[in-house]
Amino acid sequence: MSEAIAYINDQYVPASEAKVSILEPTFTKSDVVYDTISATDRSIFRLEDHLDRFENSCKVMQITPPYTRSEISTIVANCIDRTGLDDTCTTIMGTRGPYKDISSRDPRNCSNGLIVLSVPYYYVIPKERAKNGINLSIVENKRVPAESVDARVKNFNWMDLTRGLLESYDKGGDSALLCTPDGKLSEGPGFNVWLAKNGTLKTPKGNLLEGITRRTVFELAAEIGIKTIETDIYPDELREADEAFTTTTAGALASVVEIDSKPLGNGAPGLLTSQLSELYWKKRKDGWYGTHVDDLLEQ
Amino acid sequence: MSEAIAYINDQYVPASEAKVSILEPTFTKSDVVYDTISATDRSIFRLEDHLDRFENSCKVMQITPPYTRSEISTIVANCIDRTGLDDTCTTIMGTRGPYKDISSRDPRNCSNGLIVLSVPYYYVIPKERAKNGINLSIVENKRVPAESVDARVKNFNWMDLTRGLLESYDKGGDSALLCTPDGKLSEGPGFNVWLAKNGTLKTPKGNLLEGITRRTVFELAAEIGIKTIETDIYPDELREADEAFTTTTAGALASVVEIDSKPLGNGAPGLLTSQLSELYWKKRKDGWYGTHVDDLLEQ
Repeated sequence: MSEAIAYINDQYVPASEAKVSILEPTFTKSDVVYDTISATDRSIFRLEDHLDRFENSCKVMQITPPYTRSEISTIVANCIDRTGLDDTCTTIMGTRGPYKDISSRDPRNCSNGLIVLSVPYYYVIPKERAKNGINLSIVENKRVPAESVDARVKNFNWMDLTRGLLESYDKGGDSALLCTPDGKLSEGPGFNVWLAKNGTLKTPKGNLLEGITRRTVFELAAEIGIKTIETDIYPDELREADEAFTTTTAGALASVVEIDSKPLGNGAPGLLTSQLSELYWKKRKDGWYGTHVDDLLEQ
Repeated sequence: MSEAIAYINDQYVPASEAKVSILEPTFTKSDVVYDTISATDRSIFRLEDHLDRFENSCKVMQITPPYTRSEISTIVANCIDRTGLDDTCTTIMGTRGPYKDISSRDPRNCSNGLIVLSVPYYYVIPKERAKNGINLSIVENKRVPAESVDARVKNFNWMDLTRGLLESYDKGGDSALLCTPDGKLSEGPGFNVWLAKNGTLKTPKGNLLEGITRRTVFELAAEIGIKTIETDIYPDELREADEAFTTTTAGALASVVEIDSKPLGNGAPGLLTSQLSELYWKKRKDGWYGTHVDDLLEQ
């Protein structure tokens, strides 16, 4: 029997039992940072990179989970191990925690916490849709700008992304791509975006999550001799691309075959996308950037 | 014996037992709208106005709590009653709730919920500080713009406000005032702001919560013959004001006596602020806009 497992309040529990108090700013101010890590065949992908990013998110928000980096790694491994699953996604959350003095409402005066949650590996873009290619909507709702919320600090303030997603569904799309207020492509709810034009790959820069899978694509592209550019991109450039895809930890690459219900390129999943996706999964299978759960448990 | 009371999963429980699952987008996407209502002497202030705003927030986010407006009123009254307290703040939350199918991650496919929480009346600006006047910091971190998140839809996506608050504390301030990305005054973490200059009151318009206490000040000012203007305001106009104050449901009016640690006006709480504050509390005591808890319980 396998199930989702959480670590919360210093205990491992079935995920369905893991809950946050409605009295905590963790909930009422969504005052929490997180990171999501995937493991396939019990091999955790780029663990140190995820922990680096998580530590930076905590630092920016002045949240200090009461565990060392090494302890967090061990907790992650234990959660994965206890699911009994080979393939998992694990979310680590640094929480503001309860106020020490409820009358102060001072975020500096809270007992910061750590929650870790391991669930069966999932796909932000459902697997079959990802393979056949999705219809991505470039929505009107804008991504928050960096001067308001730094998207590099991974957080649960998803209202703009959720609004974008609802807008996309209303228009018959599979998911949403949001632009910054100044009209440049940013990211979607849970993924970065890439386009290919004349054999070159481009991805937006700016106020967006610097995805670990996004980073991985830069490396994969270099390996097969494809030029990559991180730059400002406006919607029309995506609409005129040869192919496009999304990247995320939970599902890796997903082909985009329509933008706003209009075919992109030849309307089929792109060859470069397929090539990168296959290489990604082959290398993952070979243990690329992997840390085996057993090696962490044995420490 | 009195204590904070919550209504969650169709039950009244001590607030300390009210928790949200970490599997719900209610938590992981902060996909929840809310409103906070005060009651003094068991008289709920402007209940219908708060419910109107709450219903609009739900509508914009396509969240449908499984209760009628009348049922919500009764639950609010029951929560207040069960605290055993005369003076309370009650938060009603419309939650996205759990996914019906965890693999879909579709916000339209969730079981929306309602949580109500009544706690002892509190002050967003601590009471003594409010009386003597606070030092408000105009912070660098910007309020989210309307095209990203509509601040009129009361929500827990507080990361910009929390960043602003931390920035204010770092500078020795008591709280923060955020500007929109284009540099106009917006609001602080949990309050609107007002200034008085040459006997006229001004408050920012734009992407900010249209506070019920803010609305009340327009009415109080009219009653004592003070002109009010809702307009774009830049920081320098506030710095050069005669007096200033904040408004919020939890604490009403609080004097501002310093901006960025520099005295505002004569550096003492303003006379107009005091006059409005006294009138506010006198009228509250007289039952102005009040709905008595007992009248709702008896229905």
